[in-house]
Amino acid sequence: MDRIVIVNGPNLNLLGTREPEVYGRHTLADVESLCRAAAEKAGLELVFMQSNHEGEMIDAIHEARGARGLVINAGAYTHTSVALRDAVAGVSVPAVEVHISNVHAREEFRHHSYLSAVCRAVIVGAGIEGYRFAVELLAA
Amino acid sequence: MDRIVIVNGPNLNLLGTREPEVYGRHTLADVESLCRAAAEKAGLELVFMQSNHEGEMIDAIHEARGARGLVINAGAYTHTSVALRDAVAGVSVPAVEVHISNVHAREEFRHHSYLSAVCRAVIVGAGIEGYRFAVELLAA
Amino acid sequence: MDRIVIVNGPNLNLLGTREPEVYGRHTLADVESLCRAAAEKAGLELVFMQSNHEGEMIDAIHEARGARGLVINAGAYTHTSVALRDAVAGVSVPAVEVHISNVHAREEFRHHSYLSAVCRAVIVGAGIEGYRFAVELLAA
Amino acid sequence: MDRIVIVNGPNLNLLGTREPEVYGRHTLADVESLCRAAAEKAGLELVFMQSNHEGEMIDAIHEARGARGLVINAGAYTHTSVALRDAVAGVSVPAVEVHISNVHAREEFRHHSYLSAVCRAVIVGAGIEGYRFAVELLAA
Amino acid sequence: MDRIVIVNGPNLNLLGTREPEVYGRHTLADVESLCRAAAEKAGLELVFMQSNHEGEMIDAIHEARGARGLVINAGAYTHTSVALRDAVAGVSVPAVEVHISNVHAREEFRHHSYLSAVCRAVIVGAGIEGYRFAVELLAA
Amino acid sequence: MDRIVIVNGPNLNLLGTREPEVYGRHTLADVESLCRAAAEKAGLELVFMQSNHEGEMIDAIHEARGARGLVINAGAYTHTSVALRDAVAGVSVPAVEVHISNVHAREEFRHHSYLSAVCRAVIVGAGIEGYRFAVELLAA
Amino acid sequence: MDRIVIVNGPNLNLLGTREPEVYGRHTLADVESLCRAAAEKAGLELVFMQSNHEGEMIDAIHEARGARGLVINAGAYTHTSVALRDAVAGVSVPAVEVHISNVHAREEFRHHSYLSAVCRAVIVGAGIEGYRFAVELLAA
Amino acid sequence: MDRIVIVNGPNLNLLGTREPEVYGRHTLADVESLCRAAAEKAGLELVFMQSNHEGEMIDAIHEARGARGLVINAGAYTHTSVALRDAVAGVSVPAVEVHISNVHAREEFRHHSYLSAVCRAVIVGAGIEGYRFAVELLAA
Amino acid sequence: MDRIVIVNGPNLNLLGTREPEVYGRHTLADVESLCRAAAEKAGLELVFMQSNHEGEMIDAIHEARGARGLVINAGAYTHTSVALRDAVAGVSVPAVEVHISNVHAREEFRHHSYLSAVCRAVIVGAGIEGYRFAVELLAA
Amino acid sequence: MDRIVIVNGPNLNLLGTREPEVYGRHTLADVESLCRAAAEKAGLELVFMQSNHEGEMIDAIHEARGARGLVINAGAYTHTSVALRDAVAGVSVPAVEVHISNVHAREEFRHHSYLSAVCRAVIVGAGIEGYRFAVELLAA
Amino acid sequence: MDRIVIVNGPNLNLLGTREPEVYGRHTLADVESLCRAAAEKAGLELVFMQSNHEGEMIDAIHEARGARGLVINAGAYTHTSVALRDAVAGVSVPAVEVHISNVHAREEFRHHSYLSAVCRAVIVGAGIEGYRFAVELLAA
Amino acid sequence: MDRIVIVNGPNLNLLGTREPEVYGRHTLADVESLCRAAAEKAGLELVFMQSNHEGEMIDAIHEARGARGLVINAGAYTHTSVALRDAVAGVSVPAVEVHISNVHAREEFRHHSYLSAVCRAVIVGAGIEGYRFAVELLAA
Repeated sequence: MDRIVIVNGPNLNLLGTREPEVYGRHTLADVESLCRAAAEKAGLELVFMQSNHEGEMIDAIHEARGARGLVINAGAYTHTSVALRDAVAGVSVPAVEVHISNVHAREEFRHHSYLSAVCRAVIVGAGIEGYRFAVELLAA
Repeated sequence: MDRIVIVNGPNLNLLGTREPEVYGRHTLADVESLCRAAAEKAGLELVFMQSNHEGEMIDAIHEARGARGLVINAGAYTHTSVALRDAVAGVSVPAVEVHISNVHAREEFRHHSYLSAVCRAVIVGAGIEGYRFAVELLAA
Repeated sequence: MDRIVIVNGPNLNLLGTREPEVYGRHTLADVESLCRAAAEKAGLELVFMQSNHEGEMIDAIHEARGARGLVINAGAYTHTSVALRDAVAGVSVPAVEVHISNVHAREEFRHHSYLSAVCRAVIVGAGIEGYRFAVELLAA
Repeated sequence: MDRIVIVNGPNLNLLGTREPEVYGRHTLADVESLCRAAAEKAGLELVFMQSNHEGEMIDAIHEARGARGLVINAGAYTHTSVALRDAVAGVSVPAVEVHISNVHAREEFRHHSYLSAVCRAVIVGAGIEGYRFAVELLAA
Repeated sequence: MDRIVIVNGPNLNLLGTREPEVYGRHTLADVESLCRAAAEKAGLELVFMQSNHEGEMIDAIHEARGARGLVINAGAYTHTSVALRDAVAGVSVPAVEVHISNVHAREEFRHHSYLSAVCRAVIVGAGIEGYRFAVELLAA
Repeated sequence: MDRIVIVNGPNLNLLGTREPEVYGRHTLADVESLCRAAAEKAGLELVFMQSNHEGEMIDAIHEARGARGLVINAGAYTHTSVALRDAVAGVSVPAVEVHISNVHAREEFRHHSYLSAVCRAVIVGAGIEGYRFAVELLAA
Repeated sequence: MDRIVIVNGPNLNLLGTREPEVYGRHTLADVESLCRAAAEKAGLELVFMQSNHEGEMIDAIHEARGARGLVINAGAYTHTSVALRDAVAGVSVPAVEVHISNVHAREEFRHHSYLSAVCRAVIVGAGIEGYRFAVELLAA
Repeated sequence: MDRIVIVNGPNLNLLGTREPEVYGRHTLADVESLCRAAAEKAGLELVFMQSNHEGEMIDAIHEARGARGLVINAGAYTHTSVALRDAVAGVSVPAVEVHISNVHAREEFRHHSYLSAVCRAVIVGAGIEGYRFAVELLAA
Repeated sequence: MDRIVIVNGPNLNLLGTREPEVYGRHTLADVESLCRAAAEKAGLELVFMQSNHEGEMIDAIHEARGARGLVINAGAYTHTSVALRDAVAGVSVPAVEVHISNVHAREEFRHHSYLSAVCRAVIVGAGIEGYRFAVELLAA
Repeated sequence: MDRIVIVNGPNLNLLGTREPEVYGRHTLADVESLCRAAAEKAGLELVFMQSNHEGEMIDAIHEARGARGLVINAGAYTHTSVALRDAVAGVSVPAVEVHISNVHAREEFRHHSYLSAVCRAVIVGAGIEGYRFAVELLAA
Repeated sequence: MDRIVIVNGPNLNLLGTREPEVYGRHTLADVESLCRAAAEKAGLELVFMQSNHEGEMIDAIHEARGARGLVINAGAYTHTSVALRDAVAGVSVPAVEVHISNVHAREEFRHHSYLSAVCRAVIVGAGIEGYRFAVELLAA
Repeated sequence: MDRIVIVNGPNLNLLGTREPEVYGRHTLADVESLCRAAAEKAGLELVFMQSNHEGEMIDAIHEARGARGLVINAGAYTHTSVALRDAVAGVSVPAVEVHISNVHAREEFRHHSYLSAVCRAVIVGAGIEGYRFAVELLAA
């Protein structure tokens, strides 16, 4: 069965408790449920991980080789990690970049993403619904 | 009945014929059908317009006051128009910015949007499906 | 009879309703009355227009040839339009640039004006009184 | 019969009267005559337009589809309009950019053109003769 | 009786003699007379000072605490003094920034003002009339 | 009992042996002793860790939730890690940034810190005494 | 007896009254008392001055030659004065730079200090306690 | 008899063999023939030279004193040579800058020319026809 | 016996499968063999490691203390990691930086390396032969 | 009798004691003697002053009106003071800028001078002999 | 017989005498011997030249057409010469860029090379051994 | 007998005829006479050369090894030539940089000199007298 791999980056484990006025009150478990529902509906397996370690995220992306698609919310590594960009480009799996909050309405250093240019689509500020859109897009 | 207003900017009338390897083969009529279906499903009226004139787009945004939501694909004006940004901010309607192609994988001058900071969400590179996501998001 | 031409740019038709904490509660009609009073006092005719279309503003500036003076509040086009600058320079009419709010206390991209260098004077943050002073200045 | 489309931008209607020490004493009608003569000599139809409205210029470029060539003097929009660039790229007609004065000897913001990269040739500072040469080049 | 404090910065003591083609032929005494007349008309006391010393200007601003308003033409310190900005912000008196010449039509380093963001209004290029308007504005 | 958490970043395990002319001859064990003494004096528990792994530092910051305070010397990650900044902001614990050497007297890329803006205080160049002062500050 | 010289810059005379939400409610007299206590404890004489005049601050630094140490809070001159930097470097007295508020959490132009590179240590955001620690550091 | 001097810069001796997809298949001998024909038609003498040596090009420009005009294709020196600019300005001969390929559609460092500001006209991307037009322009 | 330590960074485990048109078809095992052969020939022990974790790479560099030399291909961390730079500088072992592909012919953000300034030599674009030469250089 | 005015800026009173490896062992009194000798030889009166106060320097420049020439070594104010530039430009006296050390071989922020553009000549790095050259130049 | 062409740029004739602490004590004759040995071993002819003239270097590169490979140490022209870059690109011979010292550990303006992007490999800081490796690489 | 070497760069052969309002009416022969007189007075031999060829200037600087001093007016190469800088640094002869006009009052690209940092002194805008000062300085 085809699978969708969802990789979450640093501090996303705090979701729901950290600055809820920015990130909302949903937890990462809520995100996972939402994604599982969308994947199931599309007849796809779901791999869902979170790590504060850039290296573990790279490892997870490598393991996504052969998957139907990759959804990546790299958190703050979005703005600083060329290594994650290379990992995404290296595995040749269609990828969608997701951010829960609208990074463009925040500090300037959050406006640039190393990942966007190697992803197919970028969904920003749509809350946790952004993950669902990403799964649907890759499933299509 | 609540309405969703969709504003399309310069050169989008060429959709389907202009650089199809970048923008795909769907026409703007296809986009409109897709949006109408999504709006109908959500029980919302749809206003759909396209113009190559920045001023007409501003007028259309002004007329969106009181709407449920605004979807805006400002085309090339995205990168140069403070006036459209002010119009969106001025009408206080929740807005979603959409781009069919992945602007972040193109020329550097397409990476900055004056609109993103005053929109709720930004959907980039999801093809014409991005419009459907936007309507669903505003309908929710 | 000599005339003063007043050109208002994008979104100024929303004056009084749009972000009143920034732009105040006066409407554009209030601005026009204020200007008419000042012009009349100085024995001058007044032409007053607003448009969201850059091209119509350029046309209006061209029509100002031979006038005693030009007052221009180009709104957001202030920061992006070389064409308006060329129009002002091209008609050789003394011009005063006006902004109702203090643009220097707002976003960085509002700090630069393409018009200032080709105007005689610039009045910023004086509310709608700035228009009156501009008319007086040109009348003198 | 094949046609050449010539699109002139903002403030060019003032040609001959506006800053003659920069732009010379020829009027836009003189330019049109010169172009008609060159087109006729090459057995080509000529479409000649001027507008201060960016949107009308985009419309005119769209209508140039299928033409033998496009000559564009976008005036001040040259330096600010990504939308015109996209229009030129979108219609796939060989284009030549023309400027009457030598923009490189003027203010720094006139040194960059959004159009040059999508045109075949750029002719700067050759006065109105630049139009003639552009027509000859496209006719060849 | 309420008072207006007017603080003039470096080289303004040369007014009328220094580069008259830029600053005009009025002397600082003329400016003071003009301001006194305007203040008197509004029933306000006037404090008027000039200094080439940044520190004396800061002292004068501190002494303006409790005044109705502050008019400041900081001359060249406008572009370099964070300390004057902090002084203006620190005394919480409504302030208007004035420049006799149009600084935006001069060297690039004169285009940025550290004061503008902490003043209410900025009047540039209106000659010595700018002072009168500033007094009227604060008196209102 | 309330606790202070001290997080040390990359290469600080080499303290005392690495470039002693820059960092001095104290080892990280010396730092820990100094901190323990200060914490004990203030009746506070001390958690002290060092890691070369950005992810482990983020984990440690997350575990600091509910602590009295956080002292962070992020070493070279100071200049590159938005993720550590987000972690500090995310746990809402008062934080003090410490650097043993004077980073402002070194290479330009060491002058900017992503952490400073989300910390309460920053102590630079005070040698290992900086840690003691940080503990005292948070204990107060 | 050895002495510590403390030099305070522009607007610090307003301490306790100026923007107390930024600088706290302590007055400069409180700072002086705190410093005297710390110096006395270390058996050192204390010279304490404040001036809004850059030149007087330079003079005071020159008079610090031969002192045990120099504590400098140059206020806004921190960001603009190469002359103060040269004065500190010129007298060869160990110096500590202090800022009461966290300058790194404020406007960008407050992030750079001309003094830091010629001081031994920099203490930012520790409130008036920063002065005490500076005295202790120099006394040690 | 009046003369036109044509100066060609580095690597242009490779014309026709070097990157023909960029520069076309015409050789420098073809360019010379074309120019001779145009000069002859206008009753002008032609001096034609090429050198890979910046100094020889400067010498040739100096020798152009008193000529009717100068055509210069400085190749890569266009982007780096202030000395050639000074030479052109120093001899006071009307000059036209020519580039065979459209430099604006190539690497960013080819977009700036030190020569353009001291030439009368600039012709870019017109192939070798650009030389002919330059000769005609100077002959007129 | 003296040893050479070879540290490979993120995504290099994909060598031979990832973008072979950029990185070639050799695997990391091939690199290791090549290095072992070169080390053996020089009578040196070889330590060879790869990790996607910046922290593990730092640990490995620390363990290289006392070695004859260090060869480092930090992959994408080259461009972003001050921590690796500090680790290399901190252990005082002669180091050679290696990149398989020519990073200077790729995206601009790959042109800057934080490591180069603390390495002895840098070998770029020589394919996997670059490793061999690095070992020979350190062995000499 | 004609006079030469010599204005010395901040920290120059320390000359001979401050960083002698940069500024040499001559004192300001030596400089004055040297200048007096040169002025006397040219039959000119000499006014020689030094101040750490920018305002006093401006006052001194104003008093130089009508002098034969002005020699200015503005020390660190060279790099930051627009007010001194305006003072020099305002008095219309031929001025020569002098620096004892070679500022171009020092920190980057010492490479730019606000004064150079309004002076006739600039003499840098010639030690105190630079003052003599300046006097001779103005005397001629 | 196939040949390798080695082109050396400005000041390399001083090798061994000029700043030996930067460039070592080997002379250019030593470099030539080393290269001849390597070429001979590979059965290749060697052409070896040095010039301080950019134009002569371009000529030499043109003459390298048809060679097996080109080794280029362009000295200071590396950082400023687009013409050399175009020459290398124009002859389509595989090239290796060599620098004896580690340019990345020197002034910032030595970090950028116009040549690197058109060479296959770049060897920096390996002393004169870098030449040998370059020959081996091209011979392989 | 000790010698002074004077190296003049591009376009200085035009001195006296080229833009006399900028460079004055003295010819290069006048400069040479002036220098010969000054050298003779100091008992020094003089070598005087001019070339438009960067390479010849480098050769001349190399030949200056062992001289008492070097005077260099590199003309436009001042702003672009790292090779000349390296030549000056490479021969270890005290050098003085001279410019006849005040380069700081001209275009921005003339404000930076690659030579200044490796020269002892820089004399700008003193006309041809600057050469005499330079010779005197080196003779002393």
